[in-house]
Amino acid sequence: MSKKIIIVGGVAGGATAAARLRRLSEENEIIMIEKGPYISFANCGLPYYIGEMITDRDRLLVQTVEGMSKKFNLDIRNLSEAIKIDREKQTLSIRKVDTGEMYEETYDTLILSPGAKPLVPPFKGLQEAENLFTLRTVPDTDKIKAWVDEKAPEHAVIIGGGFIGLEMAENLVHRGVQVTIVELGNQVMAPLDYEMASIVNKELKKHGVNLIFNDGVQAFEDQGNKILLQSGRFIDSDLTILSIGVQPENDLAKKANLEIGSRGGILVNEQLQTKDENIYAIGDAIEVKDYIQQTPAMIPLAWPANRQGRLVADHIHGQPVSYSGTLGTSVAKIFDLTVATTGNNEKLLKALQKDYEAIHIHPASNASYYPGGSPISLKLLFDPNTGRILGAQGVGIKGVEKRIDVIATAIKGDLKVTDLADLELAYAPPYSSAKDPVNMAGYVASNVMDGEVSVFHYHEIADLLAKGEIIVDVREPKERENGAIEGSINIPLGELRDRLNELPKDRPVYVHCQVGLRGYLATTILTHNGYQAKNLSGG
Amino acid sequence: MSKKIIIVGGVAGGATAAARLRRLSEENEIIMIEKGPYISFANCGLPYYIGEMITDRDRLLVQTVEGMSKKFNLDIRNLSEAIKIDREKQTLSIRKVDTGEMYEETYDTLILSPGAKPLVPPFKGLQEAENLFTLRTVPDTDKIKAWVDEKAPEHAVIIGGGFIGLEMAENLVHRGVQVTIVELGNQVMAPLDYEMASIVNKELKKHGVNLIFNDGVQAFEDQGNKILLQSGRFIDSDLTILSIGVQPENDLAKKANLEIGSRGGILVNEQLQTKDENIYAIGDAIEVKDYIQQTPAMIPLAWPANRQGRLVADHIHGQPVSYSGTLGTSVAKIFDLTVATTGNNEKLLKALQKDYEAIHIHPASNASYYPGGSPISLKLLFDPNTGRILGAQGVGIKGVEKRIDVIATAIKGDLKVTDLADLELAYAPPYSSAKDPVNMAGYVASNVMDGEVSVFHYHEIADLLAKGEIIVDVREPKERENGAIEGSINIPLGELRDRLNELPKDRPVYVHCQVGLRGYLATTILTHNGYQAKNLSGG
Ligand SMILES: Cc1cc2nc3c(=O)[nH]c(=O)nc-3n(C[C@H](O)[C@H](O)[C@H](O)COP(=O)(O)OP(=O)(O)OC[C@H]3O[C@@H](n4cnc5c(N)ncnc54)[C@H](O)[C@@H]3O)c2cc1C
Ligand SMILES: Cc1cc2nc3c(=O)[nH]c(=O)nc-3n(C[C@H](O)[C@H](O)[C@H](O)COP(=O)(O)OP(=O)(O)OC[C@H]3O[C@@H](n4cnc5c(N)ncnc54)[C@H](O)[C@@H]3O)c2cc1C
Ligand SMILES: CC(C)(COP(=O)(O)OP(=O)(O)OC[C@H]1O[C@@H](n2cnc3c(N)ncnc32)[C@H](O)[C@@H]1OP(=O)(O)O)[C@@H](O)C(=O)NCCC(=O)NCCS
Ligand SMILES: CC(C)(COP(=O)(O)OP(=O)(O)OC[C@H]1O[C@@H](n2cnc3c(N)ncnc32)[C@H](O)[C@@H]1OP(=O)(O)O)[C@@H](O)C(=O)NCCC(=O)NCCS
Repeated sequence: MSKKIIIVGGVAGGATAAARLRRLSEENEIIMIEKGPYISFANCGLPYYIGEMITDRDRLLVQTVEGMSKKFNLDIRNLSEAIKIDREKQTLSIRKVDTGEMYEETYDTLILSPGAKPLVPPFKGLQEAENLFTLRTVPDTDKIKAWVDEKAPEHAVIIGGGFIGLEMAENLVHRGVQVTIVELGNQVMAPLDYEMASIVNKELKKHGVNLIFNDGVQAFEDQGNKILLQSGRFIDSDLTILSIGVQPENDLAKKANLEIGSRGGILVNEQLQTKDENIYAIGDAIEVKDYIQQTPAMIPLAWPANRQGRLVADHIHGQPVSYSGTLGTSVAKIFDLTVATTGNNEKLLKALQKDYEAIHIHPASNASYYPGGSPISLKLLFDPNTGRILGAQGVGIKGVEKRIDVIATAIKGDLKVTDLADLELAYAPPYSSAKDPVNMAGYVASNVMDGEVSVFHYHEIADLLAKGEIIVDVREPKERENGAIEGSINIPLGELRDRLNELPKDRPVYVHCQVGLRGYLATTILTHNGYQAKNLSGG
Repeated sequence: MSKKIIIVGGVAGGATAAARLRRLSEENEIIMIEKGPYISFANCGLPYYIGEMITDRDRLLVQTVEGMSKKFNLDIRNLSEAIKIDREKQTLSIRKVDTGEMYEETYDTLILSPGAKPLVPPFKGLQEAENLFTLRTVPDTDKIKAWVDEKAPEHAVIIGGGFIGLEMAENLVHRGVQVTIVELGNQVMAPLDYEMASIVNKELKKHGVNLIFNDGVQAFEDQGNKILLQSGRFIDSDLTILSIGVQPENDLAKKANLEIGSRGGILVNEQLQTKDENIYAIGDAIEVKDYIQQTPAMIPLAWPANRQGRLVADHIHGQPVSYSGTLGTSVAKIFDLTVATTGNNEKLLKALQKDYEAIHIHPASNASYYPGGSPISLKLLFDPNTGRILGAQGVGIKGVEKRIDVIATAIKGDLKVTDLADLELAYAPPYSSAKDPVNMAGYVASNVMDGEVSVFHYHEIADLLAKGEIIVDVREPKERENGAIEGSINIPLGELRDRLNELPKDRPVYVHCQVGLRGYLATTILTHNGYQAKNLSGG
């Protein structure tokens, strides 16, 4: 029996669903409704076209209306906005964007993949600000690029230090623009924890980007050429990008009385159906479950949208599918750095008052004797009781996303931190070490789990110093010239066995080095000699 | 209670065991016996020092005898060869290599990590061949490098196209030497299947390397300057590297009446103990179980040696460890290509008469609109009944080992091919696509599992043609100019729905394209229209 299926939204989730639906059946009538001029475009490539890393605009259009219609025998209607769903009659009202003409279509099944739109608070002076842009679509991109090409702005201000903001920062710097990022929080890249984000700050500064933290926009003045911050400070801007986050496109769903979550996402079951079983919703517009905690989450990324698009098509064809939540695995290139994360971060675990332990390591991306390697800062979060992997963050120049992908896979395979040591990963000098960074994270975490070594964390140091605790720096004296913890005792690792008598056995001894490895060795030496030693996680 | 532990072999397995033993206890006496001048050297870096990719020879020495002795409080004896084990008396006879002096040491526990040595068959003229080398140790490396530096060989012959042979080929080409590889089999890189190895052939030829397959050495003549092949052909050589494989160093074990497997590996249990529970054996010298099939295997790689070194130390300290087999995950850089594999290949599965299915895909390493991407040839082997992942092979320029590492992790997590579609991997344009190549492999394999699409394989084509079967090429006419299967019918994908009547419904229709995707789309169109269509795996 032939069905009539209408899809609202023709990009990541919508186009994927359409293609899969057609591959599963030649029979059904499939209509795709897209309010913009283009379908199936490369949202994620937009910043790079502005930055002229991608030079051919056509490359942004993965499929055209004509090409995709033909290839998949679809009825694709761009410049068509879905306005209203009548669930009783099973009809969708559609408005032609250019003519304003309205008409109705009946449907058997409806798929909503309308995405999310940039958050734009009603700042004072917003309407008058001519140099203010948000970035979501190809037309947005064209406008920003034309502004850069024609007005040759000297100074750009980016409001919001999320991944779109940082990608725009990089691409504007490529275009010779001086960039300032204004961020309300105390760090960029919210999926990272603070200490990991600090590495990104350095990279941004290295490339001339100014960072303003803990401050936000109060008003735009002088047609947007001056921005008044909440602190009272004024900054000049020739081009402003507002990238403080996105909000789900939930209008259609709301008006149709479908359920909406507290953060505005459309609510769906594990089969991605709204409370109306004939209406599915997917992508940035929905609320998902955090894969680790199974708590509500909004994770506007392309993988979930694509995955959900396929699953919905399968479910419509009677296949038993279920979407079990989103891990939030992500990666971004920030100048020469790669920043990648998966699962929960420490901020979230702390807020949820979960039991967790964190380890930090800084292994080389590949054998240190082979040229081209560089250190990866890797943070691993786990449940110290069960060994369950809760999340990971990596920052570095090379091989970062590989390690995060491996850990994301381990999470899906329900492997424990102790199992990470047992992952047999590919090794040759240009690619890794015989103990891969992920193995190493597994070893370090296992040692914490087994209670073989106690650790303490960088944020405890101030407190320890205040209490007058003993901190032993096991680096070489020369290394201390570039900075050392005040009041720490220096006993280089190589001398430790001969200088044990300088330390007390009746109270804790806090050990640290540069990256955590020598500190660990020192801690084992001390522990086995009867001392109460703790190692600084990550050195 | 303090124990006396002797380790034979001071490199990958041995040095790792020693370091971990010390971290687990400050008490035990740990003696490391190494017959060569160096311990803890970077075996895997040796070819790159000859090729001057690594310029500082000291970088090859990861730890020195002095440094490691001090850091880990070890008794390290280099230039000391273990000659005989007396299991009754628990003594080891040791010979000082420089003086020939012999002495005995008692032990409580003995760890054998003597590695494997290059296979050197008794070829005629071998002794007289002055320009013939094998590569295992730093002294071997010094000799080869000196020969290249001093004799400036014009033409080198490499016997054996395994990964050491190919790495040497690349490094000698870097040094301006013209290289010929002679290989007894019909392909290089045995872990790959034939069609995947063919991609490597092209890369080798592109860099001027001559390949001679299905031929081996018969004799060396003229001090090695002429090599007589089994085919009767003569080739000239100014430098010959013999790299046809390695054999386990099992002398000590054999003489001590420990059990040896049919291929010469020392036999151990899952705790890596020989039949004498006080004697452990690890690394290249032992027979392991193939992780997938649990059949005996010899897999001389650094990861297993390192892993086993750690496990043995843990077991000696009473921890419940078990080594469950080796997947054989490996990677090699061959000029601009990366070649990586994990698990079983098709040759092995065929030889073992296992039920398996193979899929081939050629996805881009990252978003095709973002510069710097390149296709990855990815082959996935799985059990069509259970969906168990049996192995994977990847060849390409970028991002290859990442995908193999992810699949190796999925295997350890006991994920099925269908689960690969569900791996939430990191995506941004410089790194991947919203459907990662591993997801794509999962989709394609799932379609085969679900019977949604039938596939046939490239090696069946000749047979199909002979039988006069119908082969439909769905590429564009222009693409056929560079070659097409003779007798195939050309119906471009875009025209297929309108030209269905040109094909018969009463017999199979074999579809192919360039990479398999358009063929897949055509196959779904045909199938849903009542045709018996099959798609060529990998196009
Ligand atoms: C600049 C930028 C960079 C990004 N980079 C990355 C990245 O590197 N990695 C990553 O994982 N994700 C990235 N994303 C996010 C990713 O693009 C989205 O998560 C993904 O596109 C969501 O898919 P979707 O189908 O839910 O929505 P979209 O792809 O946004 O598609 C929704 C479509 O629906 C249309 N629509 C909405 N309402 C209606 C209506 N009522 N009627 C008709 N049409 C309607 C919209 O016009 C839109 O075209 C990026 C996004 C942007 C904007
Ligand atoms: C050129 C080359 C490149 C390689 N590249 C890679 C790669 O890219 N990736 C990878 O995974 N693997 C690679 N390998 C393999 C890897 O080096 C080995 O798998 C690993 O070193 C095995 O560790 P092992 O401890 O078993 O043996 P080894 O590391 O070889 O150590 C054994 C030591 O024992 C000593 N010994 C032997 N018998 C005695 C005795 N009776 N008394 C005293 N000492 C003894 C030997 O002198 C030797 O130093 C490469 C090997 C070579 C030679
Ligand atoms: C372009 C778009 C329509 C593609 O959707 P799609 O057809 O589902 O995806 P792909 O082109 O990657 O093809 C995947 C299909 O080809 C099959 N396939 C891929 N390679 C194959 C091969 N070598 N042999 C056989 N089949 C193959 C897969 O199995 C899958 O089919 P299935 O879902 O029926 O199993 C959609 O992804 C899109 O609009 N993307 C742009 C927007 C976007 O994603 N933005 C966010 C990121 S920038
Ligand atoms: C050099 C060699 C002796 C090192 O052995 P090792 O000490 O076990 O290995 P590493 O130096 O990588 O250190 C690993 C240890 O440091 C710990 N560690 C690493 N980073 C750490 C950190 N940041 N914080 C705390 N601990 C850390 C790990 O937990 C592990 O300790 P554990 O085994 O007790 O859990 C040995 O690997 C070797 O000889 N290698 C050269 C030969 C070789 O491998 N050849 C083949 C490849 S070329």
